[in-house]
Amino acid sequence: MSRFFSDKYSTLEAYTPGEQPKDMRYIKLNTNESPFPPSPSVIRAVEVEAGRLQLYSDPECTPLVEASAKLFHVKKEQIIMTNGSDEVLNFAFMAFSDASHPIVFPDITYGFYSVFAELNGIPYEQIPLKDDLTISVDDYVGIGKNIVIANPNAPTGIPLSVSDIERIVASNPDNVVIIDEAYVDFGAESAIPLINRYDNLLVTGTFSKSRSLAGARLGFGIASAELISDLNTIKYSTNPYNVNRMTMVAGLNAVLDNDYYMENCRIVAENREWASRRLAELGFQLTPSLANFIFARSDRIGGEQLYLALKERGILIRHFSKPRIKDYNRITVGTRDDMETLVKEIENILKEIGK
Amino acid sequence: MSRFFSDKYSTLEAYTPGEQPKDMRYIKLNTNESPFPPSPSVIRAVEVEAGRLQLYSDPECTPLVEASAKLFHVKKEQIIMTNGSDEVLNFAFMAFSDASHPIVFPDITYGFYSVFAELNGIPYEQIPLKDDLTISVDDYVGIGKNIVIANPNAPTGIPLSVSDIERIVASNPDNVVIIDEAYVDFGAESAIPLINRYDNLLVTGTFSKSRSLAGARLGFGIASAELISDLNTIKYSTNPYNVNRMTMVAGLNAVLDNDYYMENCRIVAENREWASRRLAELGFQLTPSLANFIFARSDRIGGEQLYLALKERGILIRHFSKPRIKDYNRITVGTRDDMETLVKEIENILKEIGK
Repeated sequence: MSRFFSDKYSTLEAYTPGEQPKDMRYIKLNTNESPFPPSPSVIRAVEVEAGRLQLYSDPECTPLVEASAKLFHVKKEQIIMTNGSDEVLNFAFMAFSDASHPIVFPDITYGFYSVFAELNGIPYEQIPLKDDLTISVDDYVGIGKNIVIANPNAPTGIPLSVSDIERIVASNPDNVVIIDEAYVDFGAESAIPLINRYDNLLVTGTFSKSRSLAGARLGFGIASAELISDLNTIKYSTNPYNVNRMTMVAGLNAVLDNDYYMENCRIVAENREWASRRLAELGFQLTPSLANFIFARSDRIGGEQLYLALKERGILIRHFSKPRIKDYNRITVGTRDDMETLVKEIENILKEIGK
Repeated sequence: MSRFFSDKYSTLEAYTPGEQPKDMRYIKLNTNESPFPPSPSVIRAVEVEAGRLQLYSDPECTPLVEASAKLFHVKKEQIIMTNGSDEVLNFAFMAFSDASHPIVFPDITYGFYSVFAELNGIPYEQIPLKDDLTISVDDYVGIGKNIVIANPNAPTGIPLSVSDIERIVASNPDNVVIIDEAYVDFGAESAIPLINRYDNLLVTGTFSKSRSLAGARLGFGIASAELISDLNTIKYSTNPYNVNRMTMVAGLNAVLDNDYYMENCRIVAENREWASRRLAELGFQLTPSLANFIFARSDRIGGEQLYLALKERGILIRHFSKPRIKDYNRITVGTRDDMETLVKEIENILKEIGK
């Protein structure tokens, strides 16, 4: 830390992204990326756009917003596009929470929520998941504070029903409820249809997982036109050109190619179910994930031990050291081949340690 | 504004980007873009990268940072890459200024500085330029506050010498001085060589102007490793993957193709001098700009009047309504053809209004 760093941030603990080691080729099952490349029309559109990079991008992302509005059955004033969904989440923390408007979220969830709260000086409370790692909906009903919930939750993959979400949103009419749907396309149900009934609901999404654009950085928020207008005030006060030209056309074509991506999501869900069954047969306990990852533990091997043993064998998975979940690992669902290799290596590891 | 918007931001006036009208094709001389496309290797690299977008980008931008370190003769720990230079500027406002660490900048300068200050609740003071629109260096010597200066300044294009910058930096050892070099490559001198002597100096730059990547969004900061480390704490607490894969390889190849871009800058400077002479012959008064734009006024026609008349004829330039500079227009320097068309149309307009 330099002697010039503001006291406001001196205790800030930044988010730690999943590791991206460069020492050898790994099967990467640690950052919830899609195993499928972008669709051919995305690639073609980016190629064309590369020759126009001397010109600024459109701050309003007009064609992308219009196509997305059609896909999600909302008005274009109800959408904001951002540089990944981390950006729309940070904008939402800034816009709707402050020292006198605290925010709550589960104790086990996306690690960035507490970072956004700390960054913006927002008091926050982490509400414990139940013992089975599900969210206790009643804890949030009428709580009278801003709320952010990942649905499905991470890293458990466990979804809430839209009717449960509606109970939370309807019972906190004077607070903003953010539903982070980063993983919704792999089997859970979206809360987007609720936004026209509740002016306090913000749904966020990302093109990183289900739409194979993690490396392009594209996220979005969908809400009442009023909430989106506030988020735009923040956007135009930080970085109006936050979405570059290449990402804009990549996102546009990903929306237009929706069928390709939804078919990929179906395959990922199929691979998830296959791998989950095989791991259960090996004695693993799994949360009922509807995301593109599995969250699993076993009495036969510790969480960190399994993570390290797989890394040695060229497979990266994600281990969290947080006490409540340190026995678990989060395993991204890749291709069937990747999942077969994973299961085989886990079998080998268990044999090797004599379990 | 929604009823949920934080009071902190309720009076925020966002930055207004230059207009991008879509009603007809314009000669765009209003947003300081390069008239030259990116180099062929940039375009090829983006094409290749398009097929890998399902994978996250490298938060450290390793190859780009290493190539840039070599180009700018600094260590890689002394560079941060961001989503446009607006992002590194905002990070710097956040990191080094706060309620008890105010910041100062000229009254006529890049319009975003006051927005960043407002956004982050930072007290700020705007120090008037002299009557000839130059910066009074003595006003900043020993001022004991954080400072941000665009060099060359915008929208005047007038540069400070590095020895003047050194006087400011050296006389404020307990404050951070940000030198925003967005336009430095068109003829001014960079302050980057000073960073190893002054731990309170941050130089920011952008690939938008001289490197034909406005639409890719790439900015950077260069400073002591300690200041860069603080900026990284902010980056990793807001958006670790702030630079996408395509922009990363575009930037890398732009650095490797430095000669192509520096030759383009030379041509822009030549066109600037040509157009400046022609406008002076038409009776315009011009600031001594070393940027890729001209800042000009005339007794023969008002600033807004000229802006509107040119727009009607298919040429966009930038007019600011701020009282001190409302008689002026900022005109981006394009190709020689663009500049010839501009001068001809201005002649026609002056004839038409009988001046």
